[in-house]
Amino acid sequence: MKELDIVGKSIDRPDARAKVSGRALYCDDLPSVSGLLYAGIIKSPVPAGRIKGIHIEDALSVDGVVDIVLAHHIPGKNLVPLIFDDWIVLADKEVRYAGEPIGVVVAEHPRALDIALNKVKVDIEPLPALLSPFDAMKPDARKINPRGNIFNHHKIRRGDVESGFAEADIVVEGEYQTGYQEHAYLEPLSLMAKPTPDQGMQVWGGMQCPFYVQSAVATVLGIALNKVEVIQTTTGGAFGGKEDVPSRFAGIVALAAWRSGRAVRLTFSREEDIVSTSKRHPSFSRYRIGARRDGRLVACTAEVIMDAGAYATLSPSVSWRATVHCCGPYRIPNVRVDVYAVATNKVPAGAFRGFGTPQVIFAMERVMDELANQLKMDPLELRRRNILRRGDTTVTGQRLPWSVGLGRTLQECAKKSNWKKRRKAAEQSTGTKKRGIGCATFLYGVGLGAAGRKIDRAEASVQVEGDGSVRFSVGTTEMGQGMESVLTQIVAEALGGISPGLVTMTEVSTSRVQDSGPTVASRATYMSGNALRIACSQILNRMRAVAGERLHIPASRVVVTGGRFKAGTEEIDFREIACECFERHVPLSARALYDSPPTSWDAETGQGKAYVVYSYATHIAEVEVDTETGIVSVLRFWAAHDVGKAVNPQLVEGQIEGGVVQGIGYALMESLLTANDGHILNPDFETYIIPTSKDIPEIYPIIVESPYPEGPFGAKGFGETPLMGCGAAIANAVSNAIGRPITRLPILPEDILALFKICSAPNR
Amino acid sequence: MKELDIVGKSIDRPDARAKVSGRALYCDDLPSVSGLLYAGIIKSPVPAGRIKGIHIEDALSVDGVVDIVLAHHIPGKNLVPLIFDDWIVLADKEVRYAGEPIGVVVAEHPRALDIALNKVKVDIEPLPALLSPFDAMKPDARKINPRGNIFNHHKIRRGDVESGFAEADIVVEGEYQTGYQEHAYLEPLSLMAKPTPDQGMQVWGGMQCPFYVQSAVATVLGIALNKVEVIQTTTGGAFGGKEDVPSRFAGIVALAAWRSGRAVRLTFSREEDIVSTSKRHPSFSRYRIGARRDGRLVACTAEVIMDAGAYATLSPSVSWRATVHCCGPYRIPNVRVDVYAVATNKVPAGAFRGFGTPQVIFAMERVMDELANQLKMDPLELRRRNILRRGDTTVTGQRLPWSVGLGRTLQECAKKSNWKKRRKAAEQSTGTKKRGIGCATFLYGVGLGAAGRKIDRAEASVQVEGDGSVRFSVGTTEMGQGMESVLTQIVAEALGGISPGLVTMTEVSTSRVQDSGPTVASRATYMSGNALRIACSQILNRMRAVAGERLHIPASRVVVTGGRFKAGTEEIDFREIACECFERHVPLSARALYDSPPTSWDAETGQGKAYVVYSYATHIAEVEVDTETGIVSVLRFWAAHDVGKAVNPQLVEGQIEGGVVQGIGYALMESLLTANDGHILNPDFETYIIPTSKDIPEIYPIIVESPYPEGPFGAKGFGETPLMGCGAAIANAVSNAIGRPITRLPILPEDILALFKICSAPNR
Repeated sequence: MKELDIVGKSIDRPDARAKVSGRALYCDDLPSVSGLLYAGIIKSPVPAGRIKGIHIEDALSVDGVVDIVLAHHIPGKNLVPLIFDDWIVLADKEVRYAGEPIGVVVAEHPRALDIALNKVKVDIEPLPALLSPFDAMKPDARKINPRGNIFNHHKIRRGDVESGFAEADIVVEGEYQTGYQEHAYLEPLSLMAKPTPDQGMQVWGGMQCPFYVQSAVATVLGIALNKVEVIQTTTGGAFGGKEDVPSRFAGIVALAAWRSGRAVRLTFSREEDIVSTSKRHPSFSRYRIGARRDGRLVACTAEVIMDAGAYATLSPSVSWRATVHCCGPYRIPNVRVDVYAVATNKVPAGAFRGFGTPQVIFAMERVMDELANQLKMDPLELRRRNILRRGDTTVTGQRLPWSVGLGRTLQECAKKSNWKKRRKAAEQSTGTKKRGIGCATFLYGVGLGAAGRKIDRAEASVQVEGDGSVRFSVGTTEMGQGMESVLTQIVAEALGGISPGLVTMTEVSTSRVQDSGPTVASRATYMSGNALRIACSQILNRMRAVAGERLHIPASRVVVTGGRFKAGTEEIDFREIACECFERHVPLSARALYDSPPTSWDAETGQGKAYVVYSYATHIAEVEVDTETGIVSVLRFWAAHDVGKAVNPQLVEGQIEGGVVQGIGYALMESLLTANDGHILNPDFETYIIPTSKDIPEIYPIIVESPYPEGPFGAKGFGETPLMGCGAAIANAVSNAIGRPITRLPILPEDILALFKICSAPNR
Repeated sequence: MKELDIVGKSIDRPDARAKVSGRALYCDDLPSVSGLLYAGIIKSPVPAGRIKGIHIEDALSVDGVVDIVLAHHIPGKNLVPLIFDDWIVLADKEVRYAGEPIGVVVAEHPRALDIALNKVKVDIEPLPALLSPFDAMKPDARKINPRGNIFNHHKIRRGDVESGFAEADIVVEGEYQTGYQEHAYLEPLSLMAKPTPDQGMQVWGGMQCPFYVQSAVATVLGIALNKVEVIQTTTGGAFGGKEDVPSRFAGIVALAAWRSGRAVRLTFSREEDIVSTSKRHPSFSRYRIGARRDGRLVACTAEVIMDAGAYATLSPSVSWRATVHCCGPYRIPNVRVDVYAVATNKVPAGAFRGFGTPQVIFAMERVMDELANQLKMDPLELRRRNILRRGDTTVTGQRLPWSVGLGRTLQECAKKSNWKKRRKAAEQSTGTKKRGIGCATFLYGVGLGAAGRKIDRAEASVQVEGDGSVRFSVGTTEMGQGMESVLTQIVAEALGGISPGLVTMTEVSTSRVQDSGPTVASRATYMSGNALRIACSQILNRMRAVAGERLHIPASRVVVTGGRFKAGTEEIDFREIACECFERHVPLSARALYDSPPTSWDAETGQGKAYVVYSYATHIAEVEVDTETGIVSVLRFWAAHDVGKAVNPQLVEGQIEGGVVQGIGYALMESLLTANDGHILNPDFETYIIPTSKDIPEIYPIIVESPYPEGPFGAKGFGETPLMGCGAAIANAVSNAIGRPITRLPILPEDILALFKICSAPNR
């Protein structure tokens, strides 16, 4: 393989300067245009009930109020198209969670909104709320959602678990629970819609999935897709929280703009954002694993219940991914898995970095550590004996022909962390501040996999200007994760190693490339990167032909490297050839669609090629537990990730660091509580605690590269993985420190104190 | 050829509703964004002088003034790149015409601009102004422009004119003169620039040539082309007046935005627009033609001087086109043509519908009528005997293998107008109201021709959405001429005859397609239409393959018509196949570059394939001249145009009607006068008279279709032609009416009265 010029280098982020200087324009920063209206959402005050009437007269008479829009004003369908068609835009007959949108007040100035919202009277006949998935699963439970209360039951049936357990020398069981996690992105939801002169709609906003928003707006307004242009504005973090949620609110804002004929903007306060948007699914898992005395796993059963909230939204996919990842990155011949996504009268849970896997990784890795305890085996050694290696087959029956760097992540992590020494030291720690060290190994299916096959494609469009500068467009989005940097490097490399400074990404718009699917599932580098690589190679080949003429050698013999076309000692700059191509009318643009390789899934057995490739990682956490205060401090964290190829190593390290911090929050702090009346109790950052800089341990990012031949320059996606093992590794470290099993995330001080009987266990 | 579904139908303009309802947003209508600044131009008060100092202190202290930007603030080059590199953005050392931009005042509100502009003191040492090209051509004349005062001398040398004239039975000579014409578009120049977060610049405005503007802004700011995005806003007429002019002012506005870091808008008042922007070149021609007694032309010489103003801008091209079109659409074996574009201390003349040809068509057709008089031959008959027909060779030595519909235009026009009868009636008119009828035949080279070969390319990008609706992007612009309708029809046809309602054009932006050259020279239908046709056929072929599978026949046998894929009686809707392709990841997008066929030109002899194809026309005007008031009324006007294929017949008729009205203004009313001090005397519509609805005669548009095989569905460009013959036909009709030769346009009442010695001839 040719030496790489740009891929593999830690170039500065092209979006960094605009962001740190304040020049970047987030949706709410967009210069307010004259005639701009402001929107405020009328929300359900109760978690369940029948709408008997909505009285808006008083609110309409508030000075500055222009319009109040309700479900019956929708010209198209009251529907946000997603996986199931159960998600509505504005509640009309029934409300299904506290905070559910019922209507929208549109006013000339934001001051009028609160006054008017207080004057809207919604007459609701309350229904008994089902807030627990266990209640909702009961056969006689009231139907929360017209589809029924069990959205999904995904399965894996592999081998014969009964004979597997019969073969086992040791069988370990455990029940595990995880809570909500709030995305806590820097930028709350903000969307703006403006009618276009040709009776279409333009929508701007911080979002992950412009094509989802396009489809929602077209559906709500009842217009064709080519009449809706969705433009992603600079997005201040997302983490899955801006995957499906903007679709519903864009539908509402577009509806308001459609009726008024004016631009309308909706920007959530932090509190409103936490109340109204999706979160990580709370989960309840029951695991049973059996192993031989040498640690070899022979059987695993898992039953997982995920609390999906009132609408299915993404839960069918989230629970499917949880299913595939349920049994960790191990060779297990006999497996039975049952994963359920269940409706409750709560805000819909949705996508969150890891997408259903941190919950099951926590459970699986905890039960693995319990097994190691029983076997009196080093937990890392137990994993070493079971992990997937090249040529192995996953629990879904998928053979792994390449790019399985898990063993190396384990080895590197063990070595860099000095695992054995620290584990021994932990065992010897005494007093009230107890040290512990724990690990987790895990995998992550890159891209949408078999469940998302239908939409797993991405287009790119590349244009080289007459001066050799380059513009490219993709349909996946930069949301802080560094996609713009990575794709810029891929373009610079694929055009022959030109300076990344010559390359610019256009704003992401549904009008620039075909529907490229969502920006989720760590797929942007892989999917858009490949589309770009194809488009660039078409352009480069045309340039190479022109360079060949100039250099008097066949095009195939022209070497392109360092942004120069070379024949022996003679060389010509990329910009010079671009200029010549321009003058000779050689086309220097291309569009290319990358189609993800085939995947498969059998719903009855859960067998198939679930994902095109997997990323792998090992996490090791060292903690100190203060048994008097219950406070857990993470001291050090080692995270080794097989990313295929690190397009920008500094960004990979940054992603690891950010993911670990977010994972520490998930493991130790972030506890979102729902009251008995269905309201979220702590929708702010004073009471919903996320890590601060003082909570951040020494983090040691370790990059492992096991190239994926189908990926751009060997890269595979990995953006989500750094968070995924944190809960498990930290819980294992805490269990190691205190000698008692942790079964619930987050591990709050009161949980630790309860384990030491200093207080009673809090009810969550 | 397959029956056409959409091309050839008079569909409603897709841009009509937005325009007539007021929803369309012209640049000055763009919602004012918070932080928007307003720009006002500091103009030279004298036509020629050396700048000694610019005192801005008092102006800077005016309340609301943010900045005053002068030439030395330019970070890149003080240059508007065009044909020659002589055109500057802001005058620094010298001013070359009254009104030339010297700087720009930038203020928070437009009120501050006038006050501040009055306080700027520019200290200029005047130089003697050269206002006439004859003075400027003198060998000892002061150099107005660093390139010298003769920008161009284009030639045709064909055969041997001396022996040609020796062969002639009759030789006729004439001197002709034409004046300025102001574009008088509805929307004065308006441009807005906004710095982008990534240190680039976005520019919006009413314009014809976004890529010219992009290049100018990049040059002025010293940044790469991919950092400049130029977006055309709805453009309220242009007629050539928004070809080159926006480049200079966009450079100025972008410079102001660059320095302030804020959005800046410049919108001209009507007066400022007339003073500051280009006009049709005044011309002075001397013709001599020789013919045999049967009317056969044997020789022609022409010397043409065009008043170019202070910078070359487009004059090299305008004068080249004048050269090629100088001798009309006739077979002439011996030709000598000399065309000069000459600098004067006046605002640069530039592009105007017809681009240098109405001047020479007037001269040539007048001298042809004089020849007919001498021969006592019907002037239409004289033309019939000499016009180019298929297989003939032009005066530049170009053979015409196809699409020469001139004969049919002449025939149809003669028939529809009842030429002979009316001509006879005119001869018999008596009294002070004299009737006359006159004709003109002419051709027009479509596209940029050999002089513009380097930039004669166009790209298109087409995207079919998952619901079968379609978006397309091109780099040529809609400016009122109907391009959007025509290209929408071409896309609808090329995708298998789908409903044009399914098709939408995106706003034109330099970021959406490669540099596609300017929107001039009647090239948009032909160039962008062909690029679209290629892109659509790539998409349709992929759809056809999918349809073939569904219909169980080979793709090649699938018939696509009326928006349906057919096999026998079975048929599937376009939208259904689009949806299937979307789900199967069949790419439904394409970019395609159309490269104009080769052209050639020998500068010494003026021989070559000047244009890829020509449009042809015959105009006949019937007038009544009141010899007591001097007022000429056009009573009826017949205009027959060979357009190859009328993509939208109603639009062709509309173009003919609009062009004739504009031509009547040029022939009879529009007189822009320059004072001795170089100022334009009548920069407003009270004193610069354009036709009103009461001046419009009965216009009879006649469409002739002589298909151009290389054009989209046989079409060739024609948008400019309807104006081009009006001056000539009306002048010939007036000459016919009054029995005296007309030698100057416009033909004002005082000119008629002078011919009857009622007053003395006005000096222009």
